Amino acid sequence: MESFAATPPYYVVVFTSQRTHGDDDAYVAIADRMVELARVQPGFLGIESARGEDGVGITVSYWQSADAIRAWHAEAEHREAQRLGYERWYAWFRLRVCLVERAYEWENLAQSRQGAE
Amino acid sequence: MESFAATPPYYVVVFTSQRTHGDDDAYVAIADRMVELARVQPGFLGIESARGEDGVGITVSYWQSADAIRAWHAEAEHREAQRLGYERWYAWFRLRVCLVERAYEWENLAQSRQGAE
Repeated sequence: MESFAATPPYYVVVFTSQRTHGDDDAYVAIADRMVELARVQPGFLGIESARGEDGVGITVSYWQSADAIRAWHAEAEHREAQRLGYERWYAWFRLRVCLVERAYEWENLAQSRQGAE
Repeated sequence: MESFAATPPYYVVVFTSQRTHGDDDAYVAIADRMVELARVQPGFLGIESARGEDGVGITVSYWQSADAIRAWHAEAEHREAQRLGYERWYAWFRLRVCLVERAYEWENLAQSRQGAE
C-alpha cells in the first residue's frame, strides 16, 4: 500500500477472517471491487491486506472518522458484498473499529533500492 | 487465532511490513518465538497474523492497556528481534497503536462444521 499523509488521531477497521473453501474467483473479483469502491468513499485514507496459505486474512482500512466508517458500512454495493460474506465466503470473521493513537513508519532505503533493482 | 474474552476498550498494535528476500528459516523461527514470548507477557490478549505471496504481512496483537504494549516493546529478547528486523528482514514496516472502541465477532456454524469434517 502507498503511505498516506494523515497523522493520528484517525481510525482503523481491523477485519480478520477465515475463508471457506472454493468460489475463489468470485471472491477475489468482489474483494478487489470493494477496495476500488472504498478508495472513493469520503474519509478513506488507505488499505492494507494479506491472506496466508491457511486461509486466514487480515484487512486493515484507515479512515478519517468513525462517521466515515459508518457510511462505508451502509454503502449499498458494500452491503451486498457483506451479505455474500455471511452466506458463502467466511467461516468466521472479526471486525474491530479502533482509534489510532500513535503511528510509526520506517523504510530501509538500502533494502528498498535492492528490491527495485 | 482463538477468540478472547475481553470487551472494548482494549488496545491493538497493527504491524504491517514488507519482507526482504531470503533468510526465511531464521525469520520464521524468530517470528514464532516472538509469538510464544508475547503470549506470556502481562496484559497480552491475543494475536493474529497473515502474510501473502507478495511478502506483505499484517500482524495484529491485542493488549489490555497501552502500558502493556510499552513493556512488550522494551522486553529484552523482543528488542533483539526488533534489531534484526531493522537490519535484515524488513524493507519497510508501519506500526500503529490503537484503542479498540467496538468489536464484533461472527461465526458461520454451518460452514465451521463443514470445515471440521
